[in-house]
Amino acid sequence: RQYRNLVHFFVEDWFISAMLGIITAILSIIIDLGIEYLTHYRIELFHWAKHQSIYSGFVMWLSYITGLVWLAAVVCYVFGKQAVGSGIPEVKVIIHGFTMKNYLSLKTLIAKMVGLTFTIGSGLPVGKEGPFVHIGAIVASLLNKATSACQYNAFFSNEGRTMEMLSIGCAVGIACTFSAPMGAVLYGIESTSKYFAVKNYWRSFFATTCSAMIFRFAIAFIVPQHFAGTITAYYQTNFPNEVFVVEELPFFILLGTATGLLGALFIWYHRRISLFKKRNRVFKAMFGKSPLVFTTLIAALFAILSYPDGLGMYIAGKMTFRETLVDFLSNCTFSLSNISSNGCPQELIAHWTSSHLGADFHPLYTLTAYFCVYFLLIPICITLFIPTGVFVPCFVLGACGGRIVGEILSMWWPEGLRGLGHPQIYPGLYAVVGAASFTGSVTHSLSIALIVCETTGQLCALLPVLIALMVSNAICAFMQPSIYESIIKINNLPYLADLPPSRMSVHTMKVERIMVKDLVFITRETTYRELREILLESPGLRSYPFVTDKKSMTLLGSVGRKYLVYLVQRKLGPEPEFVSHRRRS
Amino acid sequence: RQYRNLVHFFVEDWFISAMLGIITAILSIIIDLGIEYLTHYRIELFHWAKHQSIYSGFVMWLSYITGLVWLAAVVCYVFGKQAVGSGIPEVKVIIHGFTMKNYLSLKTLIAKMVGLTFTIGSGLPVGKEGPFVHIGAIVASLLNKATSACQYNAFFSNEGRTMEMLSIGCAVGIACTFSAPMGAVLYGIESTSKYFAVKNYWRSFFATTCSAMIFRFAIAFIVPQHFAGTITAYYQTNFPNEVFVVEELPFFILLGTATGLLGALFIWYHRRISLFKKRNRVFKAMFGKSPLVFTTLIAALFAILSYPDGLGMYIAGKMTFRETLVDFLSNCTFSLSNISSNGCPQELIAHWTSSHLGADFHPLYTLTAYFCVYFLLIPICITLFIPTGVFVPCFVLGACGGRIVGEILSMWWPEGLRGLGHPQIYPGLYAVVGAASFTGSVTHSLSIALIVCETTGQLCALLPVLIALMVSNAICAFMQPSIYESIIKINNLPYLADLPPSRMSVHTMKVERIMVKDLVFITRETTYRELREILLESPGLRSYPFVTDKKSMTLLGSVGRKYLVYLVQRKLGPEPEFVSHRRRS
Repeated sequence: RQYRNLVHFFVEDWFISAMLGIITAILSIIIDLGIEYLTHYRIELFHWAKHQSIYSGFVMWLSYITGLVWLAAVVCYVFGKQAVGSGIPEVKVIIHGFTMKNYLSLKTLIAKMVGLTFTIGSGLPVGKEGPFVHIGAIVASLLNKATSACQYNAFFSNEGRTMEMLSIGCAVGIACTFSAPMGAVLYGIESTSKYFAVKNYWRSFFATTCSAMIFRFAIAFIVPQHFAGTITAYYQTNFPNEVFVVEELPFFILLGTATGLLGALFIWYHRRISLFKKRNRVFKAMFGKSPLVFTTLIAALFAILSYPDGLGMYIAGKMTFRETLVDFLSNCTFSLSNISSNGCPQELIAHWTSSHLGADFHPLYTLTAYFCVYFLLIPICITLFIPTGVFVPCFVLGACGGRIVGEILSMWWPEGLRGLGHPQIYPGLYAVVGAASFTGSVTHSLSIALIVCETTGQLCALLPVLIALMVSNAICAFMQPSIYESIIKINNLPYLADLPPSRMSVHTMKVERIMVKDLVFITRETTYRELREILLESPGLRSYPFVTDKKSMTLLGSVGRKYLVYLVQRKLGPEPEFVSHRRRS
Repeated sequence: RQYRNLVHFFVEDWFISAMLGIITAILSIIIDLGIEYLTHYRIELFHWAKHQSIYSGFVMWLSYITGLVWLAAVVCYVFGKQAVGSGIPEVKVIIHGFTMKNYLSLKTLIAKMVGLTFTIGSGLPVGKEGPFVHIGAIVASLLNKATSACQYNAFFSNEGRTMEMLSIGCAVGIACTFSAPMGAVLYGIESTSKYFAVKNYWRSFFATTCSAMIFRFAIAFIVPQHFAGTITAYYQTNFPNEVFVVEELPFFILLGTATGLLGALFIWYHRRISLFKKRNRVFKAMFGKSPLVFTTLIAALFAILSYPDGLGMYIAGKMTFRETLVDFLSNCTFSLSNISSNGCPQELIAHWTSSHLGADFHPLYTLTAYFCVYFLLIPICITLFIPTGVFVPCFVLGACGGRIVGEILSMWWPEGLRGLGHPQIYPGLYAVVGAASFTGSVTHSLSIALIVCETTGQLCALLPVLIALMVSNAICAFMQPSIYESIIKINNLPYLADLPPSRMSVHTMKVERIMVKDLVFITRETTYRELREILLESPGLRSYPFVTDKKSMTLLGSVGRKYLVYLVQRKLGPEPEFVSHRRRS
């Protein structure tokens, strides 16, 4: 008995958490390597084809992207449409206690993994964190089932425990997307739970620590060195510790305000698109039958927009999110290149001036074009019939927006706010702040502050990040629900609404104001004639309250309309009017 | 109405949180400055007196320390003994719903602040974080009362809201002790709540962000530059990003094991001392009347032990915790000084070799002496009649232990585990890991991982910290309760125990096994003679169950012993035996 206890203890507390972290980390590494190879061959094949002729280059680019996206969509179509989309809204719904069929099955896991690899490998502007939360949750659920033999059945297999495992799974999913074991725990709590048992959260910690260790081992021993950077989303920044002066704080508040408004706009725009796709007749007539067509079409549109030698030269179309993010967060100033030692190196600037194509744009214009195009494109891509994450695209968009603000500020004050000898303005810091506050506003999460610090490996940006995040979050939360809640509402998933805050006038409202007062009811004294009239007057009701008498109105029970109709028809003869009325269902 | 709503909204959500952060931060800065001046004059006066004669130096050192500690104890004695001790256990108890009289009053706030300043200013090895959590909680409670006019009374002034404010207060208290706004939020949750409403935690974030901003402003504009470092416990480390190799992970696990065991020993030892002080007759006869005598005596003992020209030369007695911590966390190796560029500068080494006094100890011996002396001394100091924190002393002790391990390892492998050309062993990293895992094991908290990263300003140590912390926490939690729970039990504070985990055999136990079976009861048919016998047989009971009859045993009610005694005495005459028995109270 004591021995069995010990086994249970280890399986329940340590083993499952560790395995969850380890398995999800391994899956993440496999997917990352797959994505890396696919994006690598995208560029390779494109250059090879371009070498043949300029047209075959374009065709190759177009067909590679649309082909991969089509494949991803086909995988989702065949294996189950549960793999479509972010996954976070669904996991949220499941954790709140509703059952969603097949959402946590092995089949969905495979579909999600394969689909995700193809989608992101194609270069489409979507992220992997949502699908990874879903994958983590599936692994958690499968592990829970697999180890149920080692669990105390009587006390152990309770629902709360399953939910907790799912929550850990989410945390691990985020920990695998970003190299942020602590921030992931917080994000997992924040995005999935409403109430949270503190004594359980060490399991999340343990699981994410295990997955962080796996990543570390993989980098040291297994993965080839030139891939080491690609399996962890880790963007080491090298800001000095005095990266901002107090005078800059108002700019961070302004940046927070702007990202908050843009975040609300983003969510609103995404909802418009989703509802358009659901309701517009023309759209439904064209693409209603199969979601594959529209998905492929958008992929083709993206391929055209990002074609490196065509329109893509205005938006750095050749680069993946990971590469642009490195540029945005880099500790140098685009506009100070060639002038000061703070300027960026030429090869970095070249990404944004397209100088290798003979053009010479100002990086600020390219950045703005990048921001606008992706701001319009990302919400559409998110609604496609493929696994898509919202978090990473928002992160990149926010970083781009922050970089733009930072570059403008550093053009105005090239020597910093306090002049020479004091800290300059670091546009990279603004990119970090922008990324955090935009993502925070779209997803309504605060843990992003920690995630962004862990991802950049520096904490000196924490205060500006927190300030901007607070502001943007407050603004966006005031105007729109979070993107995940928005998706839940759009898809009509079951969901418990929050209680309105106690200051709302809702709490002072009385039932009186919303209740129906002119009731239809039957008393003991109701005659058949009265009954007939009642039935004719209220064709929409399915059942009728039955009370003692008009005065005391004591409820005795209710009786279904169909019994009353039957009664009246038997007593007073058939009456076609009863039948013709459609019942409210 | 809408306008009032808006006012409520701002007061309730934003204003209180912001004010809480701001006021606590200001209090913290005031206390820090006071402490800084006091420790500054300690050294100044000592040097001045030493200049007069060697004896007057000793007398000055002794009288300064004992004098300040005596003053602190007097303040606590006069203003209220609620200010004594850490404060975290009491706040924990209050948040769990028990009322503790006067613990959240303005008087206690003042006593705590003044007492804390004197105590830490004297150099006694205690910390400020526990008292600061208490101060934060008091400020929260006072603010809550002050703004209650602006609150919706009907819905707003609920108990949960007050508890939440207290929890925010705790977070702010920690945020003021360490410059760790994010870690403080986590610590506040972890150390005070059992269940936690996620939608409320942005208030903690907002409050700690406000206090971090106040600190930043104070450093930039108000506080003189040479004090800037003293008001924030911020120890910037400068490790490279590749601060450890994967092969070192086993050492971190070992370090975690060691600190876990030591943490358990620390808690056990502290409990022994507390109980000894409470129970030992000799001790009570000597110091029982006034706690001031013992407190002053221990202060004198500490003064003698730390006297810089005497015993203090073996344990760097002149230095405050803040100064030793800087040495422990410094990015250099003590033992490699004069040999390699990784060695520490001579002035740093001099602290530990006492070379300015003509001695030349090996730093390793001084470090070990420091560790042992403080390990024995700190638990005693914590039980004194002054405001004392546990967290900071444990942090320093852990850093010292980690530094010892790191120095030994770097003596074994002076060129790192992989040899030249690869990362060396950084003893500073081991100090960081040791600090986090020892503090984590003593307080049973995981948020310390984040706090230690924020305090050192670097995240590269996160993985080793997390691993060691997990191990030490698991070991210590298995052997001992946390220091706060231990204090709660020692002081017999009301407290709800945790439910035992579901794997425990407790859950399979039936009531049968613990219930009393041979009941004493009165039936309808009980005669006076039987009643008299029952009363004589069970002198300890205060009331008797009254049942229908022996067979059905249906409980009808209960009747107090005194009524039965009265009845029997009236009917059967006075019976001295009833009176002589003492009732169980």
